Amino acid sequence: MKIGKVKYNDKNFHVVFDTENNIVIPIKGSFFGDFELEEKSFPLSEVKILPPVLPTKVICLGLNYRDHAEEMKMEIPDEPIIFLKPTTSIIGHGDTIIAPSFCQRVDYEAELAIVIGKTCKDVSPEEAKDYILGYTCLNDVTERVFQKKDGQWTRAKSFDTFCPIGPWIETELDWRGLRIKSYLNGELRQDSTTSNMIFGVEEIVSFVSKIMTLLPGDIIATGTPPGIGEMKSGDRIKIEIEGIGALENIFMKLEE
Amino acid sequence: MKIGKVKYNDKNFHVVFDTENNIVIPIKGSFFGDFELEEKSFPLSEVKILPPVLPTKVICLGLNYRDHAEEMKMEIPDEPIIFLKPTTSIIGHGDTIIAPSFCQRVDYEAELAIVIGKTCKDVSPEEAKDYILGYTCLNDVTERVFQKKDGQWTRAKSFDTFCPIGPWIETELDWRGLRIKSYLNGELRQDSTTSNMIFGVEEIVSFVSKIMTLLPGDIIATGTPPGIGEMKSGDRIKIEIEGIGALENIFMKLEE
Repeated sequence: MKIGKVKYNDKNFHVVFDTENNIVIPIKGSFFGDFELEEKSFPLSEVKILPPVLPTKVICLGLNYRDHAEEMKMEIPDEPIIFLKPTTSIIGHGDTIIAPSFCQRVDYEAELAIVIGKTCKDVSPEEAKDYILGYTCLNDVTERVFQKKDGQWTRAKSFDTFCPIGPWIETELDWRGLRIKSYLNGELRQDSTTSNMIFGVEEIVSFVSKIMTLLPGDIIATGTPPGIGEMKSGDRIKIEIEGIGALENIFMKLEE
Repeated sequence: MKIGKVKYNDKNFHVVFDTENNIVIPIKGSFFGDFELEEKSFPLSEVKILPPVLPTKVICLGLNYRDHAEEMKMEIPDEPIIFLKPTTSIIGHGDTIIAPSFCQRVDYEAELAIVIGKTCKDVSPEEAKDYILGYTCLNDVTERVFQKKDGQWTRAKSFDTFCPIGPWIETELDWRGLRIKSYLNGELRQDSTTSNMIFGVEEIVSFVSKIMTLLPGDIIATGTPPGIGEMKSGDRIKIEIEGIGALENIFMKLEE
């Protein structure tokens, strides 16, 4: 099932996306508890898709694809490397990624994002799947010059709009062996599968939950495959994950 | 004025602390807008002090004290280095800092924390003071082995309870030239002044606001002076800042 949030006639709705019939159906209740479908529906073409969830935190993994590690000639890490993106960096499908004029090189990074469904602390990999609501696409937008200069990646990855997520959350999905791609202006740039992930989803959720309490809606991005690259003003970037869908955004760099 | 949050008779209250008369006075309204004092008060000795604010994010500065940089034989940075702590790491005055058994060396770091009062984006250093609600004490608890191993500081600084703040927010304070100290089991360990800060408060708020939108209650920790060190199970750590007060917590490491 595809669940998320839309704006229709200036009002926000939590909805189920019926992409076969091109409609969205508002729900009563909460995705984190019980909910029912309402009787009405809206045409998908007439809604503005919003970020599917508002997390309290976004945790990201560094290097987590074998093929990316080989491309970068980096050693395979023995534990995940994590960092945080602020929630103020989140935007939705169709929103514009806006870089300040003082940014130099801004890259896309296609990632599979885990959405947490229940409060979660100190869980084992075996227990992890009970705490996952579903999966969405995430673009871990990164300013490459600040990333290198600072050593710490926070500034490079924390600008407002640098965390597109969506378009929705797919709740019935086996994360293994999913094709993950990005397209820049329609041209294929990243093309890998989640089978190349060094740490799998259950292992990641367990690892993070041993550090910090995960809350409903929290997001963990699972790293990017090879083929990352720069965006120029006006570029269209699309992150596509098999079984989920495609997250598309325009990139714009502000003039001085 | 000292403002914050307490629990009294199992209920939470936003309060003004009258530390001369050892009472707290509940308020009606919001610290981020207008508020009035209620007619009643509670004895300070009978309330449980809670974290004074629940931020949407906690931004911290790396190396920001000249004397600490000299001690570490590190170059003075030309721009602040920032990182984030998750909000799930926040605890209040009197709460216990709890490290999992797999942590090896857990250090205290005394810091002056800025509390944001109004939504703030792209402000100049001259404008910054209008967006500051006040200041509190913060202990940037850090696991030293993970910090070194990961390169990224996030894991080391993100464990639940690794961000004690409080005991309250002082709203009328000139941050310049404040004595900042920490005591481990009553023994002086850090002793410096905010005059040794490389980047001042207004400069820091401006810098961060050019990256991300700051929201009411968000916290920026301004770095730690020399003298950081390890805590052992049962240790009592106190962060004291002139004009604010003292934040005190017990450290405990879980057994395997």
